[in-house]
Amino acid sequence: MSSQPKTIDLNADMGESFGPWTMGNDAALLDIVTSANVACGFHAGDADTMAQTMSEAVRNGVGLGAHPGFADLQGFGRRRVSLSPRELANLVTYQLGAAQAMARAAGGQLRHLKLHGALANMASEDEAIARACYEAALMVDPELVIFAISGTAQERVARALGCTWAGEIFADRAYNDDATLVSRGEPGAVIHDPAEAADRVLTMLHDGALLAASGARIPAQIDTICLHGDGETALQMARHLKARLEGEGYALAPAKGVRI
Amino acid sequence: MSSQPKTIDLNADMGESFGPWTMGNDAALLDIVTSANVACGFHAGDADTMAQTMSEAVRNGVGLGAHPGFADLQGFGRRRVSLSPRELANLVTYQLGAAQAMARAAGGQLRHLKLHGALANMASEDEAIARACYEAALMVDPELVIFAISGTAQERVARALGCTWAGEIFADRAYNDDATLVSRGEPGAVIHDPAEAADRVLTMLHDGALLAASGARIPAQIDTICLHGDGETALQMARHLKARLEGEGYALAPAKGVRI
Amino acid sequence: MSSQPKTIDLNADMGESFGPWTMGNDAALLDIVTSANVACGFHAGDADTMAQTMSEAVRNGVGLGAHPGFADLQGFGRRRVSLSPRELANLVTYQLGAAQAMARAAGGQLRHLKLHGALANMASEDEAIARACYEAALMVDPELVIFAISGTAQERVARALGCTWAGEIFADRAYNDDATLVSRGEPGAVIHDPAEAADRVLTMLHDGALLAASGARIPAQIDTICLHGDGETALQMARHLKARLEGEGYALAPAKGVRI
Amino acid sequence: MSSQPKTIDLNADMGESFGPWTMGNDAALLDIVTSANVACGFHAGDADTMAQTMSEAVRNGVGLGAHPGFADLQGFGRRRVSLSPRELANLVTYQLGAAQAMARAAGGQLRHLKLHGALANMASEDEAIARACYEAALMVDPELVIFAISGTAQERVARALGCTWAGEIFADRAYNDDATLVSRGEPGAVIHDPAEAADRVLTMLHDGALLAASGARIPAQIDTICLHGDGETALQMARHLKARLEGEGYALAPAKGVRI
Repeated sequence: MSSQPKTIDLNADMGESFGPWTMGNDAALLDIVTSANVACGFHAGDADTMAQTMSEAVRNGVGLGAHPGFADLQGFGRRRVSLSPRELANLVTYQLGAAQAMARAAGGQLRHLKLHGALANMASEDEAIARACYEAALMVDPELVIFAISGTAQERVARALGCTWAGEIFADRAYNDDATLVSRGEPGAVIHDPAEAADRVLTMLHDGALLAASGARIPAQIDTICLHGDGETALQMARHLKARLEGEGYALAPAKGVRI
Repeated sequence: MSSQPKTIDLNADMGESFGPWTMGNDAALLDIVTSANVACGFHAGDADTMAQTMSEAVRNGVGLGAHPGFADLQGFGRRRVSLSPRELANLVTYQLGAAQAMARAAGGQLRHLKLHGALANMASEDEAIARACYEAALMVDPELVIFAISGTAQERVARALGCTWAGEIFADRAYNDDATLVSRGEPGAVIHDPAEAADRVLTMLHDGALLAASGARIPAQIDTICLHGDGETALQMARHLKARLEGEGYALAPAKGVRI
Repeated sequence: MSSQPKTIDLNADMGESFGPWTMGNDAALLDIVTSANVACGFHAGDADTMAQTMSEAVRNGVGLGAHPGFADLQGFGRRRVSLSPRELANLVTYQLGAAQAMARAAGGQLRHLKLHGALANMASEDEAIARACYEAALMVDPELVIFAISGTAQERVARALGCTWAGEIFADRAYNDDATLVSRGEPGAVIHDPAEAADRVLTMLHDGALLAASGARIPAQIDTICLHGDGETALQMARHLKARLEGEGYALAPAKGVRI
Repeated sequence: MSSQPKTIDLNADMGESFGPWTMGNDAALLDIVTSANVACGFHAGDADTMAQTMSEAVRNGVGLGAHPGFADLQGFGRRRVSLSPRELANLVTYQLGAAQAMARAAGGQLRHLKLHGALANMASEDEAIARACYEAALMVDPELVIFAISGTAQERVARALGCTWAGEIFADRAYNDDATLVSRGEPGAVIHDPAEAADRVLTMLHDGALLAASGARIPAQIDTICLHGDGETALQMARHLKARLEGEGYALAPAKGVRI
């Protein structure tokens, strides 16, 4: 798809420390990514952590996003919780509002929303869940860019709502033919080699398609690439990918999103 | 002070239920008051409770306010916590932002801020604490009306900041000559008789002054009167006061605040 | 089954207040029941509430039990959480130990364990979950009486473990032919009439069997009857049942449990 | 004091991870210390962390202790909370009971109690607070060894109660003439040099006295030495002290405590 503009966003989760406990390497990540998904205090983060993370992101010109999750610090938002659409809406509205105010206090502005952990997984599988979350977010800010995982219910709902959204792919995960991720248990599910990951991403960007483990291409909207910062290996992969993208002429910038 | 416009606001704390536990009688209070101080999930309330309380307040034309407190559900925000100015700012910013978004989702708009419990007490005594809280709130929304307890550090800071603020008095508490409240342990500290409470409020409004237990008058800005909804007695006092105020020609409306 | 001793236990959940919020009518229930299932601070209750509830129970000669649930105050432990067997064991061990110490401080001794809410439902359906919870509890106190819902995985595991357990039935719920409860949505799922509830309980005790909605009898070990204290209606049913049981010659006492 | 038996205990706080967040280096510390103060889930730790920490401690033959603190994860129990004696008692009872059960599940037995953070500081200054905590703990287990900071209200209460207690000193902190610690802000408040710390400890053990910054000796019961595991520097100091103590003929073992 030669019409694909050669601009791409790199995003990563951040602000995942809590009280006396630190997690991740936000400082290093902020030198690499262009969008920061900031934990909102329910699955990780607290008001002080958010303030610090957002200030640093603003200083680095990194786009700010809310990263709401289930209210489950001990489980880090990775355990599924069954909530009604109304409860999901309130969960997202509350965290998004808190993040907006923290962003303003940090001299920035909240640009995007990306769901976290089990909430994200559930929204990838179930359109009703994605819809409850996204409608709530857009009622708070209709200009918000919804980060939707390409090929999932997240994307289908973002399209149906007619909102501004950005298609997201993973640099280090293999895809099935139906655009779902190969389960972590399976061989080859996670790509560990930075060069291989970068090759895959460049192919997907060039083709405008997800590259399945079978070799199949699944046409996809690709606007942002999810990176990780847990450990030196992840950071090396992130740095390598950034260098390769720049070497290929891609401009890195926070995703503006599309309306399609 | 004949220049005092005959408009007055009645405010009460609301949305203090949490999960499966209910507290207060919001429905009854919403028929009486003109401003609702909505708990923001730290000392009471949760996203679902906020959503419901705010929807009902909007339906009743009651002004919405954020009522932030310390993160202490078990202690209901009544236990003092020693925080730095920066931590206080983040505490208020986070809760205010959450409340703003919840208000928008409820079809309303957040108009005022009133501090809760131990946080309010500390801000009444210590200008640095009031300043940290109010500056943070005004950075999020410069148009916010700060509810400041008349004659306290809260009022002094609101004046110094040049923001829009509303002077608050208590219908059912006796004052010392220095504008502090008579301690609950002292005889006469709490007024239980609705007629006496209404007489006192009308005198204070007429005189533009707090009425001390000694009989002394302490000139004061009076824009809003704090009521309670805990139990039938409190509701009767609230209803009686409302009737008396209306009988004396006062228009009840959410406080617009002053800049002085 | 004339061999059935004419002794029966009445149990109810208690100590479900939290911080400033009260729930239930423990004082009234303690005049009726012989076993108190005391919330352990994870889904409801806190150390102060536990202390007060247990003191009152000891004064009333009511048997003390731990009532552990998921760590979810807002959801009252009614939302399912997916935990590993090891996590389940730790969850139960921690709460049981806390309850043991609180019981000792109240001058009593913890006698039984009853799982709460979603944890109980999951243990009724899945033997692995019941086993993880019960084995953990018995490692802390091998003499503990496990309250197991008759006809469920709870009972099967209690039997398999060879521990002391008490079979539990519900006074106000209709049963399916497979010993599961008729879903609340179905007509007749909940019995509201105290006389009908008492008739059913007496029939079940006499027959040593669950009485299904179809009229079928499902042989069952019945040692304790679950009552509720939420609202005057529930209390009336509880009082009526107690009177009927005593009228029929049953001695009410904390369940000693069986080993079969 | 030549009557001082040449046995000494080294203790350190442990199990301070929470959910997905790790803190400290428990594995390294367990090779050095003889007593582990295990966080009980209120200021740090959770049931899973407790289980793992206690299992490892049991495997290393390290004595298990409960380390209760205020219910304040975000503040790590370092913020003072004003509680009544009854609330303090319940706070300690609950956490101690939970720790006892977790210890039993780990194949061990809880031997000692050491208060954490702000709770410890308050108990060092105020006998009523120390008494509320210790009486509650001893009601749960009269054989528990109370770790009391030498020369403080903690020690005075332990003596007054006639319980078994162990006098505790700090390897890396300077003392004032009244046995309080030199404030961290002051020069020389914290000893950073392992050799200097070891020298001081050996002097104090030999003299049976705290060594004040002024050179004054304050006679003291010394049974256990508090170490830290935060960072490689702290671990080096701990290892060095252990080696020096063993070199001087001290046997390292969990404190048995004294009754005096």
